Amino acid sequence: MNNFNFYSPTFFIFGKERENETGKYIKRFGGTNVLIHYGGGSVIKSGLLDRVKASLAAEDISFTELGGVMPNPRSGLVYKGIEICKNKKIDFVLAVGGGSTIDSSKAIALGALYDGDFWDFYEGKQVTSALPVATILTISAAGSEGSSGSVITHENGMLKRACGGDAMRPVFSILNPALTCTLPNYQTACGATDMMAHVMERYFTNTKDVEITDRLCEGILLTVIKEAPIALANPTDYESRANLMWAGMVAHNDICGVGRESDWSSHQMEHELSAFYDVAHGAGLAVMFPAWMKFVMHHDVMRFAQFAVRVWGCEMDFQQPEKTALEGIDRLEQFLISLGMPVRFSDMDAKKEDIPTLVKTLGLGSRTLGNFIKLTEKNVADIYELAN
Amino acid sequence: MNNFNFYSPTFFIFGKERENETGKYIKRFGGTNVLIHYGGGSVIKSGLLDRVKASLAAEDISFTELGGVMPNPRSGLVYKGIEICKNKKIDFVLAVGGGSTIDSSKAIALGALYDGDFWDFYEGKQVTSALPVATILTISAAGSEGSSGSVITHENGMLKRACGGDAMRPVFSILNPALTCTLPNYQTACGATDMMAHVMERYFTNTKDVEITDRLCEGILLTVIKEAPIALANPTDYESRANLMWAGMVAHNDICGVGRESDWSSHQMEHELSAFYDVAHGAGLAVMFPAWMKFVMHHDVMRFAQFAVRVWGCEMDFQQPEKTALEGIDRLEQFLISLGMPVRFSDMDAKKEDIPTLVKTLGLGSRTLGNFIKLTEKNVADIYELAN
Repeated sequence: MNNFNFYSPTFFIFGKERENETGKYIKRFGGTNVLIHYGGGSVIKSGLLDRVKASLAAEDISFTELGGVMPNPRSGLVYKGIEICKNKKIDFVLAVGGGSTIDSSKAIALGALYDGDFWDFYEGKQVTSALPVATILTISAAGSEGSSGSVITHENGMLKRACGGDAMRPVFSILNPALTCTLPNYQTACGATDMMAHVMERYFTNTKDVEITDRLCEGILLTVIKEAPIALANPTDYESRANLMWAGMVAHNDICGVGRESDWSSHQMEHELSAFYDVAHGAGLAVMFPAWMKFVMHHDVMRFAQFAVRVWGCEMDFQQPEKTALEGIDRLEQFLISLGMPVRFSDMDAKKEDIPTLVKTLGLGSRTLGNFIKLTEKNVADIYELAN
Repeated sequence: MNNFNFYSPTFFIFGKERENETGKYIKRFGGTNVLIHYGGGSVIKSGLLDRVKASLAAEDISFTELGGVMPNPRSGLVYKGIEICKNKKIDFVLAVGGGSTIDSSKAIALGALYDGDFWDFYEGKQVTSALPVATILTISAAGSEGSSGSVITHENGMLKRACGGDAMRPVFSILNPALTCTLPNYQTACGATDMMAHVMERYFTNTKDVEITDRLCEGILLTVIKEAPIALANPTDYESRANLMWAGMVAHNDICGVGRESDWSSHQMEHELSAFYDVAHGAGLAVMFPAWMKFVMHHDVMRFAQFAVRVWGCEMDFQQPEKTALEGIDRLEQFLISLGMPVRFSDMDAKKEDIPTLVKTLGLGSRTLGNFIKLTEKNVADIYELAN
């Protein structure tokens, strides 16, 4: 097992109607003048935003609103949020929404305490401080409610880049599964795919003998495989929504990833897809992950066989383990299809002829991508071809 | 799933030689004048204490030492530690040792900021503040390095009582698996049993549909079942020590227990055993848990069958699930025996004729114990009989 640090200080407030406690927790964590950041109409239409505002008002907490976050959140709104924070002396950022809103909020919180361009942090500058951020989660997917990361797309060149640092971890996150019961099935499915991808990026590793994180990863995957179809068949089923919501958090606060090298090449290849075609991140992952698996499988057939047996319940073929390994990948692909996810370029209007552009925008040059196998530009092009 | 809060803000520093960073982290977390609290000779003989003191000296951090913690830590040393803290204006408590040392440190940290008797908190007074506590763990077992709890035995009446509160959660914990490679096998086995018990107290629940925590619990148990025998066969095997060390933390910081009612009656019945006979906590749990299981199994046969199939790999008997359930309990008992644990009173010099005294000291009266089944005094006596 590799040496590691693990730090997940977020206070999680989970369950029915917990958003009514927002004001109380903002007060506990020192907020007095809050930027409430959110996306589109559903947060307003459902009455959630009104309940949250009432909760703040009850604690005499002042606030300013900034809506309009889009999926694959953009730099433009981040700049606007930072300006508001600086002008109005905001001391706390509250995200009400999903991963996009939370990531945008983290970027605003970073920029609010920085004199330069917040984008510097997304180009590698080390994160040292940010305004406190809290979240009220409305979709189980990105895990940003418990993670140290944020992904933003810069409108200048449509560059999608990630940035991370403990200062960006939410101080508290409110997770009410009932808020996810009104999601369209497509978004639920994208969220389940995203969770699985977060686990799989950690699971396929060259670090040996990390049984504890292997088993935790498998436990999260087994949960998603059981619960996502229930939520799709009966969207108001609270128990499946609750399981998915907590699974999404543990899939990405790194409790299932410590002590091992993780990969992340599928995520980075996907970022090019969602930036270029503006498809949902989860949908792009459903396309990229099986393709990546087929390309790298022979690097460690027994790891893929373990995935097949322990996660998908495949029978081990002791004579030909690669058959079992392939069966696991096939089972994943079939599962993603059953969720309604695309698994090929053609399922999401991506085009083979765009592959050179995708590879170029990724901008690897002579560097490599990922860790399980260090992918060259040529490898990346081959994987995009497999996804075609 | 039940509503819950989850909060595990401890900063974990895991891996080889990490204890050399102790001074740096104490400084980061604001300590300037430290009480170093530890047990017996092994911490001194191994050179660990010297390395830790050198690390503090390198950061110009002053310190006072208090050794002498015994297994099943006692109130006497806690009172002594509190007095030192108050007299010397200590602002940080560093535990170097296992669960007993950490629990004693937490009690000292509590009492240092309280004008009354620290025992008040172990009799139910709510915890609101404590000095910051950090730990350098030397045995994988209690999970106190990441938990909010502490168990102390008061010498006046040998009462063993637990107390909990977020203020007692360690601010950081250093986990170097190599420090556990010199443990006697008996202590390693007791530690593994303790971890399993922490998971099983949470696993056997009346709360339905908590797949995510079920799966995490099973993952931890599967890890201990694989790794403990490796560590016993080859005590210096770093990888098995590392897996056990992290498993011990996740078994008890409650990540595998949220959203569900847990039981804890086996722990409370065991506390009477270890207070009365001064046996290791893990050994007492190995005696109590199978007995408790046999007594309560018929309350939910299918949950015990799930435990048998998913954790022990038993074949499900679909016609007679209780056979599978019983097989799981038997497999647990055989596993504990293979670790060298006692599983009956006679294996640990406990006596049938003491049962009335044990029941009386537990002091239930007309109250009940546990949640899976609410046990009466009569039930508790019956379970002690089953353990005989």
